[in-house]
Amino acid sequence: MVEDSSQMEKATSAHTEAEAHEEERDPESNSLHQPLLKRSRTLSSNPLALVGAKVSHIESLDYEINENDLFKHDWRRRSKVQVLQYIFLKWTLACLVGLLTGLIATLINLAIENIAGYKLLAVVNLIEKDRYIAGFFYFTGINFLLTLSASVLCVCFAPTAAGPGIPEIKAYLNGVDTPNMFGARTLIVKIIGSIGAVSAGLDLGKEGPLVHIGSCIASLLGQGGPDNYRIKWGWIRYFNNDRDRRDLITCGASSGVCAAFRAPVGGVLFSLEEVATWWRSALLWRTFFSTAVVVVVLRAFIEICNSGKCGLFGTGGLIMFDVSNVTVRYHVMDVIPVTIIGIIGGVLGSLYNHFLHKILRLYNLINQKGKIHKLLLSLSVSLFTSVCLYCLPFLAKCKACDPSFTETCPTNGRSGNFKQFNCPDGYYNDLATLLLTTNDDAVRNIFSSNTPSEFHITSLLIFFALYCILGLFTFGIAVPSGLFLPIILMGSAYGRLLGIAMGSYTKIDQGLYAVLGAASLMAGSMRMTVSLCVIFLELTNNLLLLPMTMIVLLIAKTVGDSFNPSIYEIILELKGLPFLDANPEPWMRNLTVGELADAKPPVITLSGIEKVSRIVEVLKNTTHNGFPVIDDGVVPPTGLAIGATELHGLILRAHLVQALKKKWFLQEKRRTEEWEVREKFTWVELAEREGKIEGVAVTSDEMEMYIDLHPLTNTTPYTVMESMSVAKALVLFRQVGLRHMLIVPKYEAAGASPVVGILTRQDLRAYNILTAFPHLAKSRGAEKH
Amino acid sequence: MVEDSSQMEKATSAHTEAEAHEEERDPESNSLHQPLLKRSRTLSSNPLALVGAKVSHIESLDYEINENDLFKHDWRRRSKVQVLQYIFLKWTLACLVGLLTGLIATLINLAIENIAGYKLLAVVNLIEKDRYIAGFFYFTGINFLLTLSASVLCVCFAPTAAGPGIPEIKAYLNGVDTPNMFGARTLIVKIIGSIGAVSAGLDLGKEGPLVHIGSCIASLLGQGGPDNYRIKWGWIRYFNNDRDRRDLITCGASSGVCAAFRAPVGGVLFSLEEVATWWRSALLWRTFFSTAVVVVVLRAFIEICNSGKCGLFGTGGLIMFDVSNVTVRYHVMDVIPVTIIGIIGGVLGSLYNHFLHKILRLYNLINQKGKIHKLLLSLSVSLFTSVCLYCLPFLAKCKACDPSFTETCPTNGRSGNFKQFNCPDGYYNDLATLLLTTNDDAVRNIFSSNTPSEFHITSLLIFFALYCILGLFTFGIAVPSGLFLPIILMGSAYGRLLGIAMGSYTKIDQGLYAVLGAASLMAGSMRMTVSLCVIFLELTNNLLLLPMTMIVLLIAKTVGDSFNPSIYEIILELKGLPFLDANPEPWMRNLTVGELADAKPPVITLSGIEKVSRIVEVLKNTTHNGFPVIDDGVVPPTGLAIGATELHGLILRAHLVQALKKKWFLQEKRRTEEWEVREKFTWVELAEREGKIEGVAVTSDEMEMYIDLHPLTNTTPYTVMESMSVAKALVLFRQVGLRHMLIVPKYEAAGASPVVGILTRQDLRAYNILTAFPHLAKSRGAEKH
Repeated sequence: MVEDSSQMEKATSAHTEAEAHEEERDPESNSLHQPLLKRSRTLSSNPLALVGAKVSHIESLDYEINENDLFKHDWRRRSKVQVLQYIFLKWTLACLVGLLTGLIATLINLAIENIAGYKLLAVVNLIEKDRYIAGFFYFTGINFLLTLSASVLCVCFAPTAAGPGIPEIKAYLNGVDTPNMFGARTLIVKIIGSIGAVSAGLDLGKEGPLVHIGSCIASLLGQGGPDNYRIKWGWIRYFNNDRDRRDLITCGASSGVCAAFRAPVGGVLFSLEEVATWWRSALLWRTFFSTAVVVVVLRAFIEICNSGKCGLFGTGGLIMFDVSNVTVRYHVMDVIPVTIIGIIGGVLGSLYNHFLHKILRLYNLINQKGKIHKLLLSLSVSLFTSVCLYCLPFLAKCKACDPSFTETCPTNGRSGNFKQFNCPDGYYNDLATLLLTTNDDAVRNIFSSNTPSEFHITSLLIFFALYCILGLFTFGIAVPSGLFLPIILMGSAYGRLLGIAMGSYTKIDQGLYAVLGAASLMAGSMRMTVSLCVIFLELTNNLLLLPMTMIVLLIAKTVGDSFNPSIYEIILELKGLPFLDANPEPWMRNLTVGELADAKPPVITLSGIEKVSRIVEVLKNTTHNGFPVIDDGVVPPTGLAIGATELHGLILRAHLVQALKKKWFLQEKRRTEEWEVREKFTWVELAEREGKIEGVAVTSDEMEMYIDLHPLTNTTPYTVMESMSVAKALVLFRQVGLRHMLIVPKYEAAGASPVVGILTRQDLRAYNILTAFPHLAKSRGAEKH
Repeated sequence: MVEDSSQMEKATSAHTEAEAHEEERDPESNSLHQPLLKRSRTLSSNPLALVGAKVSHIESLDYEINENDLFKHDWRRRSKVQVLQYIFLKWTLACLVGLLTGLIATLINLAIENIAGYKLLAVVNLIEKDRYIAGFFYFTGINFLLTLSASVLCVCFAPTAAGPGIPEIKAYLNGVDTPNMFGARTLIVKIIGSIGAVSAGLDLGKEGPLVHIGSCIASLLGQGGPDNYRIKWGWIRYFNNDRDRRDLITCGASSGVCAAFRAPVGGVLFSLEEVATWWRSALLWRTFFSTAVVVVVLRAFIEICNSGKCGLFGTGGLIMFDVSNVTVRYHVMDVIPVTIIGIIGGVLGSLYNHFLHKILRLYNLINQKGKIHKLLLSLSVSLFTSVCLYCLPFLAKCKACDPSFTETCPTNGRSGNFKQFNCPDGYYNDLATLLLTTNDDAVRNIFSSNTPSEFHITSLLIFFALYCILGLFTFGIAVPSGLFLPIILMGSAYGRLLGIAMGSYTKIDQGLYAVLGAASLMAGSMRMTVSLCVIFLELTNNLLLLPMTMIVLLIAKTVGDSFNPSIYEIILELKGLPFLDANPEPWMRNLTVGELADAKPPVITLSGIEKVSRIVEVLKNTTHNGFPVIDDGVVPPTGLAIGATELHGLILRAHLVQALKKKWFLQEKRRTEEWEVREKFTWVELAEREGKIEGVAVTSDEMEMYIDLHPLTNTTPYTVMESMSVAKALVLFRQVGLRHMLIVPKYEAAGASPVVGILTRQDLRAYNILTAFPHLAKSRGAEKH
């Protein structure tokens, strides 16, 4: 997925000589099966990943509270009013996130329904006049133009807007910052591109993009995103830190799901189960608030649109795919079809994951050839889709309208369950009902209940086969695309087919079979349980379906898990994002962090009062983002030997750059007073992460001066002893949300350095460790505990 | 709540001389407002808490993996088959927990419905014959006997079965073991007592007890509980550890909620939001599986009972309080009544918490006078309840049956919305409809929709006032009692009253007002959001109510939180259970763990190869449960000074006792080989926590021998440096789930001890720290971050 090699080189050139002696490696080889690094006894990290469609330098986030003197001082001085203000703003931002997400989601819906609606109406009008060829060119042409616009935007302006964005959000909440992912440009391209791609009738949903849109809004409000487009409002400057941004993005992701499915509880649970890494009760509550705001906004718009002011927006309520009118009757024997749905759904889901992985790798090769190739790929998928959607219905036989149908039959309008298409009056084309409509309506039609004979089995088979192909080939193209809807479409077709195959054995309605089929394929591919269960409940408004849905989800997930990881994990791996899993691998118990530190280059430490030249040298020659600060020759309080060393803490690269920029220099080697540093720096300034050492000019006179690092040092970094097992260190690292973890010696002896190493996210990744310690791979078979 | 002083002394006598010099304190003073400990500069911990109704010695749980040599050896040797077996058993146990909880819940339901049903039928028969006095004595007498049986069981056999048990489960999952809480005796008494208490018409629910029952089943299956009744099956011996037990108990609690409300997703979320401290995706999934099993069991029984084989059990479906037949129509202006419901609900909820706290303190004084007083208290509450339930309906005026009612009116059966009671034919007594019925039916009746004029306002006022009084005075008596139903009853009455008061302003149905009122009071008292939302959704089966429920819950929780903590937190504090909150207090940033360690007695360390006499002495004279193991004079690997000391790890008291019991003695001071220790101990044996030093006999010859502690020592305890702030140490302690945390020095100097202190749960509790450092209390105002 690399655009062109120059871009890759640019990313690589950010690396310094310290890494230059490592073997050159090809970032495209970044995949599940090919080794990223050559096997060596050195534990090296690779801060590159595919972001959007290009290889970028990724950075870890600082979720740990940086307890330096400035922070502590500010913390002590915070008044009650400021605290209340902070709480108030926190909730205001959560409200704003919900409000904006709800508004944008409504706008997207309005735009899609109107564009696709008028397009379909025009096509239907042409068909009614038997002008099939004109209809074909009209349909294909409009779809082509819509795809073109979406694709051009994505390719030229914001490559990160392509795809669903959910894996990157997952990575962000896990502690990995992906550049340009949550910026204003991405947001705008995502909105417009999503409208274009969905209106173009491509087999993709607006659900994933909406989650990304919610997160972008949250990140922008939290003053994140690329530097040039950042919001820098004074009144929310206290939120300019990774922790608060993380919470806000969680709210944004929930709001997105909520807006996509009109499922407020499902949205919260989706964030909880799939997206978020850290979670606490207070956040649960705030997320819930955001989704409540979204629902109120959606509800208000539905109220307005019901009075017909929204063009073709329709008159739907809060329930997207209502099947509440079906009376669910089941008994013990229905366990058998339900189990079958679950098992087949699990198998199909993992097969889908498997093939999607292959196709994404193939697309990767195409996409890296350049922008034109990306565009051509998108456009050919669009053409193929349009041709299939328009031509396949001609294969289906016309079916006679049954007078027992409660809906009008046949219809020529935009929506409707019985499309006339090429059929004579009194007849309908069941395949056109499914294909010549928006994806949302297709789901609604295939979920339609109490209509057992509506769809012919061959029509369903054609539909299923088509959407299997489209689902695999559409996802990787350069437009904003969600995975939910393609999987629901595939799953519902398979479920309905199974319902027909079951025939008289079961009394469950075919519409419910379609719902259960969709649920099973979702669980088989995405491997969620509780959140999917609630989302389906909120989508279909049929509580009595719940026990069946639960069983189907459990079975499908179990079956799927025995084959391959979830689709999001596959994409995370494919993109090379260093996601930290909650469970340590079993072999990590047999390795100590001391051994890990030995496999790394020696740790670079700074003195408490350090020479400017040394700092500049260290910053220029390494890419590390944190340096332990050590005081030599301190006098310990009681009776110990003179000459002890002391670990003062950890200083961040960003703060060192700030100190250089602000010329926080001392003529002599002395410790500063607290007021001195407070005059020079404010807590808010230290929150800024921008600033590169390349941009700082230091004169040769200044090079000979000193910097007192003490007041800028985080005095309370988390530490582990060198005898600690990697498994337990990983638990600490991930549970507490660290960026750096210091390794301290277990020996207490004079002259020893008080820190023997430093561990980062990359050092704790199973893959990297196994590369450095190949013998451990043999014992991999054991269970994850 | 202390039964008699002898019991208290017994509990206290478990303390050793090390604590004897501390001032004698009164465990009854254990409350929110009175200080537990005299203010001193020594940070002392109080391992006592109210469990059930008596003061007991509580212990922390070992959620940390004890990586000693034996464990590591066993871990390495685990074959794939064993691992698969482990996973299979894990799921089997989760299934069993769901199955048994579902079965027992059904049994309890059957018993209650039948006992209460036949009781009410007999009373109605007497009333029909105008034998009011006989009816009164029959009603009161039966209720008295039922209460007596429940109460006698609780008082004499299992005092821990009284109350809801949810606070203790919360504490367990936070890492505090409360003795006798999850035993077989508690389980049986809880089941029978719950049947008795609910059938007796007391104002309490079976919901809380069901959660406790689920947890008891889980704990017993996980081989927990008091030693004498423990299950010790060989095939699940690998589950005999606190971690697996914790997971299983989480499943049990979810199953309990699910069985109580027939709300599988709500059950999972309740555990997640309210009960559990640590959570991970895998557990979410397993919990979901347990609740799915419960639903299947419930569903199967409903199927059986629908064919009339369950006596008076009725013909209900999976939805307990169905209001799905109401068409919810609302527009923007309905925000006002919804906000009012939320605000009043929040105020009422916090008032309820406030008064319940006062009354629990009062009951505490009564209960500690002895068993007879406890019994008398329960019986007088029962008498008062019976008198009110029977006599108050006579105050209500008879209302004429409206022919527009779809239900039969009046009825004399067990259930029914229009009870005839003392009224002539064609009339019904609306207060009798609410009072002379089971609590479940009362909720169903008051939720009844499309019946705006069913209840007279005075009847509702009487009902509300009565249940406010009963709700406050019933909870603390010595029977198994849940808080959910009393609050729902109170809340629904208040909601319906508000609905009447709103009059023509709103078009929302009065039944929905009752639902929203119940939700608001729940949120105002229990302060849950997402889980309550889903539970109410699953209780009422009306998805369109969701946006309103969400807003009501959010407002009620916000209002309630501004007054006092949630009811469970109040009970936890009242019982003195050392619950660790996720958020550190702000002033904890200004205190280091080193200062904390200075305020404690010096840490007691053991040598790697220690004399038996020293170990016996240490075990006898302290109550500590973990001791750092230090090696002196080791030779560090590279060029450091000889005479370094090394922290080898931490050894648990239980393992020291095991070593003494098994006579793992050495004649000379030497390190043992790995095979030696493997011959003596198995990993499974070390999982046993029983065994007191008092029961171990060591001869004077043996006293002079040595024990090699190395192979039994956990070599990877979590450590913090002495300069670490308490806030961050608390985050580590709580996030990773520790029992002991070692403090290591930040100086690296010869001759220094490699460990300067040890911190436990009690040392990190805000209250205890503030007692030792009173000056910090001043800065308490700042915000929790």
